[in-house]
Amino acid sequence: MVERYETSLLLLCLFSFSALVLASSPCPLTGLPLVRNISEIPQDNYGRAGLSHMTVAGSLLHGLKEVEVWLQTFTPGTYTPIHRHSCEEVFVVLKGSGTLYLASDSHGKYPGKPQEHFIFANSTFHIPVNDVHQVWNTNEHEDLQVLVIISRPPVKLFTYEDWSMPHTAAQMKFPYYWDEQCYKKESPKDEL
Amino acid sequence: MVERYETSLLLLCLFSFSALVLASSPCPLTGLPLVRNISEIPQDNYGRAGLSHMTVAGSLLHGLKEVEVWLQTFTPGTYTPIHRHSCEEVFVVLKGSGTLYLASDSHGKYPGKPQEHFIFANSTFHIPVNDVHQVWNTNEHEDLQVLVIISRPPVKLFTYEDWSMPHTAAQMKFPYYWDEQCYKKESPKDEL
Repeated sequence: MVERYETSLLLLCLFSFSALVLASSPCPLTGLPLVRNISEIPQDNYGRAGLSHMTVAGSLLHGLKEVEVWLQTFTPGTYTPIHRHSCEEVFVVLKGSGTLYLASDSHGKYPGKPQEHFIFANSTFHIPVNDVHQVWNTNEHEDLQVLVIISRPPVKLFTYEDWSMPHTAAQMKFPYYWDEQCYKKESPKDEL
Repeated sequence: MVERYETSLLLLCLFSFSALVLASSPCPLTGLPLVRNISEIPQDNYGRAGLSHMTVAGSLLHGLKEVEVWLQTFTPGTYTPIHRHSCEEVFVVLKGSGTLYLASDSHGKYPGKPQEHFIFANSTFHIPVNDVHQVWNTNEHEDLQVLVIISRPPVKLFTYEDWSMPHTAAQMKFPYYWDEQCYKKESPKDEL
């Protein structure tokens, strides 16, 4: 019984120590080599089944101020939220295919019916600042992998439940999920 | 003889017409589809043997204001000039390997001996604003292909003949070669 108690105590101590190290880990991350192997960069789904997100080069993680690069993979049938952000965004499709839904008229009260664009491996497109959009892996047989470049990091997202939700009702999420670990209140955010 | 003259005249007319169309082609380019096939984007070596440069998504060509994306290929033994620019730059190495030469101390009078970093397929690195650098395909057997992301387009380059040339003697080139066709004097340029 005493042994079991000691083991529990040891585990608790180890857990607390790990939590402390994580909480106090410096951001931007220090000690990283200048040239980094993309295969070794941590990835996560941030609670969204079918997503793999990796920040290849980022603001909060790596100290960039003006651009940020993500590598994202969507399993068949998965998608981004319907959303907008006040930054430029360029996509380079590395694998698979899918559909870009884009509501270009951001001057109405709500996004309205989006235009559908077929996206495919070795294609590129960009999203104008504040245009509401969604990327969907509509290919049943293959993952969709994209390299995403944004300006003005870290990103501040406004998400919509559907295309008829008023812009004013869109829900703001900042810091975004992958920025939460490194976000501090004094983190810079360039606004329009 | 008359026929040959007529053919020459026709060719001359055609040539003049093409030159006129090119000269008056609107920039940013209009009529492009939103989603573009990267394989169909024009590429050129801009007078540098062994280089292939393609502007995947650009400021002057496509109307972006805050980021620009290039796809560049270097045949074995070829390299960029030794240079600096006052923008952030992120590289993603897609194919091959090579060497990044980076002089991090931009506070001296000249760049000085650079540090050498091995770069390889599926690696990433970024160049801090104004650090003098050079990318060299030092792999004798394979092309080096990189995706390059810059902020504050269009780029303004300062090139050095060698690593001991004073910063003040570096030669400014703006617009850069691939921006010349679309550059107008009133093109915006965000400065530090």
